[in-house]
Amino acid sequence: MSSSNKILTFTSLENIPNIKIGDNLSEILINSLNNQSIKLQDGDVIVLAQKIVSKTEGRLVNYSQIIPSKEAVKLARITQKDARFIELVLCESKKVIRAKNNTLIVEHKNGFICANAGIDHSNVVQVGEDSENWVLLLPEDADKSAKGIRMRLQEYYRVRVGVLIIDSHGRAWRNGTVGITIGLSGLPGVVDLRGQEDLFGFRLKITTVGAADELAAGASLLMGQAAEGTPCIHVRGFPYELQEAALAELIRPEELDLFR
Amino acid sequence: MSSSNKILTFTSLENIPNIKIGDNLSEILINSLNNQSIKLQDGDVIVLAQKIVSKTEGRLVNYSQIIPSKEAVKLARITQKDARFIELVLCESKKVIRAKNNTLIVEHKNGFICANAGIDHSNVVQVGEDSENWVLLLPEDADKSAKGIRMRLQEYYRVRVGVLIIDSHGRAWRNGTVGITIGLSGLPGVVDLRGQEDLFGFRLKITTVGAADELAAGASLLMGQAAEGTPCIHVRGFPYELQEAALAELIRPEELDLFR
Repeated sequence: MSSSNKILTFTSLENIPNIKIGDNLSEILINSLNNQSIKLQDGDVIVLAQKIVSKTEGRLVNYSQIIPSKEAVKLARITQKDARFIELVLCESKKVIRAKNNTLIVEHKNGFICANAGIDHSNVVQVGEDSENWVLLLPEDADKSAKGIRMRLQEYYRVRVGVLIIDSHGRAWRNGTVGITIGLSGLPGVVDLRGQEDLFGFRLKITTVGAADELAAGASLLMGQAAEGTPCIHVRGFPYELQEAALAELIRPEELDLFR
Repeated sequence: MSSSNKILTFTSLENIPNIKIGDNLSEILINSLNNQSIKLQDGDVIVLAQKIVSKTEGRLVNYSQIIPSKEAVKLARITQKDARFIELVLCESKKVIRAKNNTLIVEHKNGFICANAGIDHSNVVQVGEDSENWVLLLPEDADKSAKGIRMRLQEYYRVRVGVLIIDSHGRAWRNGTVGITIGLSGLPGVVDLRGQEDLFGFRLKITTVGAADELAAGASLLMGQAAEGTPCIHVRGFPYELQEAALAELIRPEELDLFR
């Protein structure tokens, strides 16, 4: 057992403005960090809600003019959702996993399984004319988004950091959403403990830890889902070594998955 | 947006001795907290690895003398596991969910879905004669275990706290285990945000957050799985109001679950 205690701290960044298309998120983060007198250190991680990344990347879509496909119309009947919205979901997906009243679970283009391809309506645009039809798609390539932000932060602070982009997903078997990784750069998605021994010298049975998803869930606690939302979280004390990684390592291949 | 930043801090408790049957975990926690000069405050949460709770409760079992049932023998053939071990898993379970080479996913007696009914072999006993056959069952009723510890901590510190007992579970669709709630007392399992509005006045679509599971995942990061394990974590800054709760609120009823 280690002799000094370990501390992991999540701090919400304040004064993040309402994000608009084309905003430079890295500079917004640097401003906010400086305002809070947080100087990034080696090993720190910045966790970002998907929503603000998507907004800067212009992923806002109005679906009122979309012509739904036959499949979308069929799924709309099953799920009781708007066929034009479903068409958008299908465009963002590889495969429909489950469709039922009020629920559409898909495999997103980027590999993860989630409801509605992560397309979201809340916190998108001001209430007004046609505002009900505006939605926000996930970032096109959240690993790439994370990497761009990380490179700028590393350049500015001259340290090695990680950037994690998260969303809130429902889960099989359990109630309640949890924060989960949809893109990352510079921190491990999965940490492989194979070969390590337990306290008594046995080989471990738990072999891989979803470290980035554990971090995503912890950070999500501070983000909130409603009006008090704070979409950027600074993390100090992430206990695993930073390394190059990709979302793909967190995705179980279909042929090894018992629950699709 | 709130004007002051929010901070969530996880601190590992050190000098937790190697736990034995009958140890008083509350007193061990109080000693460790005092040694680290942590005085519990209203709203703090203590997160405990299942393993130390199970050990104090004497949930160690040696399966070498168990006579496996027919079903256990059949499942042992499918999963390539020891039939006596499988028999133990069945005794701890309501239902087998999936059985495949090297994998046995069940619904635990207490309602959650996990591999091997959470029965674990690592960190259980010293390597020695017959040590391979000693395993550790989950606490009989982890909500009750959490409540007992919480009551003692509240009495000692005269504050309102939560106690969360967690394990590491694999997940559908994704690689890597994450820390997850198996019992709790005094903090919400699920937080219901229905009726709240987003930044722009829309009703939220995400309606319930698995707050205890997000906390479990964050705390799990600091626990480690191998020899450096620190099974007790102090949390300050949990952002939701403490309340009476039970594991059951985190379990999706079978009839509403699309993935069993």
